[in-house]
Amino acid sequence: MEPVFELQYALDTFYFLVCGALVMWMAAGFAMLEAGLVRAKNTTEILTKNVALYAISCTMFMICGYAIMYGGPDGLHAAVPFLDGILGNGVAEHEDTYAPSADFFFQVVFVATAMSIVSGAVAERMKLWSFFAFSIVMTAFIYPMEGSWTWGGDSVFGMYTLGDEGFSDFAGSGIVHMAGAAAALAGVLLLGARKGKFGPDGKVNAIPGANLPMATLGTFILWLGWFGFNGGSVLATSSVDNANAVAVVFMNTNAAAAGGLIAALIVARFMFGKADLTMALNGALAGLVAITAEPSTPTPLQATLFGALGGVLVVFSIITLDKLKIDDPVGAISVHGVVGFLGLMLVPVTNPLTDDGGASFGGQLLGAVTIFVWVFVVSLIVWAIIKAAIGIRVSEEEEYEGVDISECGLEAYPDFSIKS
Amino acid sequence: MEPVFELQYALDTFYFLVCGALVMWMAAGFAMLEAGLVRAKNTTEILTKNVALYAISCTMFMICGYAIMYGGPDGLHAAVPFLDGILGNGVAEHEDTYAPSADFFFQVVFVATAMSIVSGAVAERMKLWSFFAFSIVMTAFIYPMEGSWTWGGDSVFGMYTLGDEGFSDFAGSGIVHMAGAAAALAGVLLLGARKGKFGPDGKVNAIPGANLPMATLGTFILWLGWFGFNGGSVLATSSVDNANAVAVVFMNTNAAAAGGLIAALIVARFMFGKADLTMALNGALAGLVAITAEPSTPTPLQATLFGALGGVLVVFSIITLDKLKIDDPVGAISVHGVVGFLGLMLVPVTNPLTDDGGASFGGQLLGAVTIFVWVFVVSLIVWAIIKAAIGIRVSEEEEYEGVDISECGLEAYPDFSIKS
Amino acid sequence: MEPVFELQYALDTFYFLVCGALVMWMAAGFAMLEAGLVRAKNTTEILTKNVALYAISCTMFMICGYAIMYGGPDGLHAAVPFLDGILGNGVAEHEDTYAPSADFFFQVVFVATAMSIVSGAVAERMKLWSFFAFSIVMTAFIYPMEGSWTWGGDSVFGMYTLGDEGFSDFAGSGIVHMAGAAAALAGVLLLGARKGKFGPDGKVNAIPGANLPMATLGTFILWLGWFGFNGGSVLATSSVDNANAVAVVFMNTNAAAAGGLIAALIVARFMFGKADLTMALNGALAGLVAITAEPSTPTPLQATLFGALGGVLVVFSIITLDKLKIDDPVGAISVHGVVGFLGLMLVPVTNPLTDDGGASFGGQLLGAVTIFVWVFVVSLIVWAIIKAAIGIRVSEEEEYEGVDISECGLEAYPDFSIKS
Repeated sequence: MEPVFELQYALDTFYFLVCGALVMWMAAGFAMLEAGLVRAKNTTEILTKNVALYAISCTMFMICGYAIMYGGPDGLHAAVPFLDGILGNGVAEHEDTYAPSADFFFQVVFVATAMSIVSGAVAERMKLWSFFAFSIVMTAFIYPMEGSWTWGGDSVFGMYTLGDEGFSDFAGSGIVHMAGAAAALAGVLLLGARKGKFGPDGKVNAIPGANLPMATLGTFILWLGWFGFNGGSVLATSSVDNANAVAVVFMNTNAAAAGGLIAALIVARFMFGKADLTMALNGALAGLVAITAEPSTPTPLQATLFGALGGVLVVFSIITLDKLKIDDPVGAISVHGVVGFLGLMLVPVTNPLTDDGGASFGGQLLGAVTIFVWVFVVSLIVWAIIKAAIGIRVSEEEEYEGVDISECGLEAYPDFSIKS
Repeated sequence: MEPVFELQYALDTFYFLVCGALVMWMAAGFAMLEAGLVRAKNTTEILTKNVALYAISCTMFMICGYAIMYGGPDGLHAAVPFLDGILGNGVAEHEDTYAPSADFFFQVVFVATAMSIVSGAVAERMKLWSFFAFSIVMTAFIYPMEGSWTWGGDSVFGMYTLGDEGFSDFAGSGIVHMAGAAAALAGVLLLGARKGKFGPDGKVNAIPGANLPMATLGTFILWLGWFGFNGGSVLATSSVDNANAVAVVFMNTNAAAAGGLIAALIVARFMFGKADLTMALNGALAGLVAITAEPSTPTPLQATLFGALGGVLVVFSIITLDKLKIDDPVGAISVHGVVGFLGLMLVPVTNPLTDDGGASFGGQLLGAVTIFVWVFVVSLIVWAIIKAAIGIRVSEEEEYEGVDISECGLEAYPDFSIKS
Repeated sequence: MEPVFELQYALDTFYFLVCGALVMWMAAGFAMLEAGLVRAKNTTEILTKNVALYAISCTMFMICGYAIMYGGPDGLHAAVPFLDGILGNGVAEHEDTYAPSADFFFQVVFVATAMSIVSGAVAERMKLWSFFAFSIVMTAFIYPMEGSWTWGGDSVFGMYTLGDEGFSDFAGSGIVHMAGAAAALAGVLLLGARKGKFGPDGKVNAIPGANLPMATLGTFILWLGWFGFNGGSVLATSSVDNANAVAVVFMNTNAAAAGGLIAALIVARFMFGKADLTMALNGALAGLVAITAEPSTPTPLQATLFGALGGVLVVFSIITLDKLKIDDPVGAISVHGVVGFLGLMLVPVTNPLTDDGGASFGGQLLGAVTIFVWVFVVSLIVWAIIKAAIGIRVSEEEEYEGVDISECGLEAYPDFSIKS
């Protein structure tokens, strides 16, 4: 092969691997964020949930999810041999411009991100093994199916392709984040609120997180990982055009997070009178979600403003969900679902539909509805089946004592005096 | 364009983005370091300060800082359109050898580093929104101005260029670290010491940090991020010479941190009789600051020794500042200011002034004085204005109760029994 | 030079540096993992041990370890000038295909990994400065010697080369991990168990770790860093073949960790009735160790299964060591030693001995025995000398009070109420 082609191939592959490693790191971010935002007595369990869901995601996507999402007809007949064929030996096909294994590695960490979103919303009251059961279905089937309609051009399920309808979701505000939030919402509705969250008189009780340095660390990890999440979604970097695009994406991703953080901090200051750190963190994440559907076409100022819009929206969304008695301990449905939808609807502002691609408001709405309905309805069915079969909620006593003891047999902070 | 040129462009851009992401990660490092070194009751506030200052830095540098520091005359007329012009579309100019957005991304994370240094020194007693007010001025104006005299060759303010005077500061021992420390010192002098730090009889009371694993994590994060900070400052990597330079910088950065840590640990052992972890951490950071002004010309052994010099100096500097009743809860002025100056003065040892560049002791001294006087004096004025306008110090009662409640309305560790 | 060669050189160098930075990050992972798994009263000390051992490793490997492991005859005469010669100026030799300093940087972080394994096993009862004394010998001499027989083809000590015997250890299941565990085991045997670990009636008392979020974070850091550890061990990435190999290694490393985590979680569930987080974390690490000896030839499904084998083995190994009254607070000997051996023995399954390389079971066994005997015996002698000279164990009273106060003079969590 041509030496220049070899170098392009090598650089694009390395870029995918670095970006994939950054997205993998987001799993740590979700784990720390959620561990910081729950109570001390439910910390071991949420850590266990996070490490295990990452492992389950990687395994199920390998076994069949990747084949469903991206595989042609051959892939469906025998997923594992198929994977072994294309991934195991790492031999590039004639038409490949980067290593197939690097593509799998990058895609598999996205699945885990979608699944991570669920774990926070159902925290502090769900049975651990019921959650694992849902994780298997979500990462093996629910996510790959909707992924095949959007990003999976070659998939046999991809015959109905949203892209033809003027739908565009660069790195997954809808496909990953809103999808995760839809699955979470379905679970939360069947699960009910934590004991004590909503008083009999309509009062909403704040249940503060036990470890804010951990939550802050988690947010920083997610912020860093998002450079890989969005930056890697350019899918190549070895030409001047692609390199410019990746650089713009990094810059805008950072700008949107900054805008979201500042906006949420200011809004919370006016509403609550204080500089609310958890709102600021959620604002940064909202900024990131908002820019994810299209980080390559806005100017940095637009990216900052889009992020700020996400930061404002997330504060009101969290308050609204509380009023609706939808109990989401870490705000995941607001951050990833509500702001994920915002992100989709912002795409046509800077990347309108043309002959070369782009998005229309109608196409975005259609895509958002398709993703939401599919993931929400199927998730609801799956959660309901699990509920009927083995139950999804721990007993009241276990919830009161904390799920760490009942589910994991280990306290997260055994040497520390914990307030009851 | 030539395929080889495209690859060079792509590799240099990707290298900038990876290094920039590592420097962004330093924001998490400062947040964790400072959260670990303050008391539990002041932890939420310092976390809020750190996440917000990062967001403010990114936004202000985008709005005008970058234009002041690097922009030609056009940039000054209309900063935002200018930025949108050069950054928004990501189109490379004829003469560019990497993506302009990647350059902005790399530079913007440096601003945040300078600002992060301030937050630690003023911890546990400053009003949060006064700090934010200062952050805006620092990142929009004070830092970019001194940056334009040193690194901003094309800036309209760069007509007075320290480089012509035999001044050289590779990655910013002076331009970033000492500048941050000078701003911090100005704030600390106006703010005064924390209640209880200095007894009436001249006794210095140790106020230990509440969470040393967090502080250690923060140090490791900074250590890792510093590879991007120094390594990216070579500004290109796609040739053999540049690749060698980047590799030497990584190696020496690591060696200097190691030397600083060991030296501080040993000095503290002799002075206090124990292996003082916080001194060891500050020693590592001091080693990193010391090598930052010139990480490319020392041998690895020299780098280790320069780092060790920084590690020894920081211990004595911390003790001396305590004696002078300058209260710096995390040692930031010593680590970044005193050792930043040392770093500048070490440059001529391995990179003396020649026709091809390098530094003279006189040039370094002139540069250090210029940076310090500019940043210190302007910061003092800005702090004084903020103090007169809205105050900079919380009330005694708020300080006693902890600024987490008064400023943020959230405890950092609400489930834990905290000693009063 | 040819532009294409320059680019290959630059890309391979950058790849080494990125991978090296990831491995350096593993030092933070070990620190957090161990800080989370010990008791609160021994946390400052283990943090100090971890930061200092990293610094010592970097310094000693620079002074002589690298020369012993990789240096030709010239290197032995004068290690430091030799290093300065090859590393200080960063000039590539004619035959180099990447920067020599990048090679050093990558190798030096491996030494620290080997040493980190020791610190966890001897936690909570060893004298800090005795540990440092051992660190010096381990990183300057014990590890480099065995490294010269395996990876150090050019080393003057490498004349006896295990590779000739059908031994292959891609990234160091044996050379790094089992070696670290062998040194740890020698220390643990001389040191004895912690007071209270083993009851008079043969009862094994669980001593839970104080901070499971930290331990989880440490595991995620190690998982991320392992991409650099294994991925960088391909040693080049700038051709299609090498890029494919690196991508396969990333994919398989991730798959093995996932497999190990799931397997350990399930086994622990059946044995203890709960989802044991610490076992899950050790399972992930075991999966990583198991795949390290050969991550490039298995299919992803095989990698998952090999990891799962490691995850099962580590649970039984931890239980067995407890029964043997070998007290390893963090499970390091099981994770890195027992599973490291498994990793070596799995190599021939997917990479059998051929004329082009590969491994035989006999060769692997010979290599494992050689590494273990060398490291264990020499370590035992060194530990014994240190024990005779200055002692290796703190007093009973110091152990009861916690080594943080006696060794470091600082509590890790001074603001928190700690249960006695």
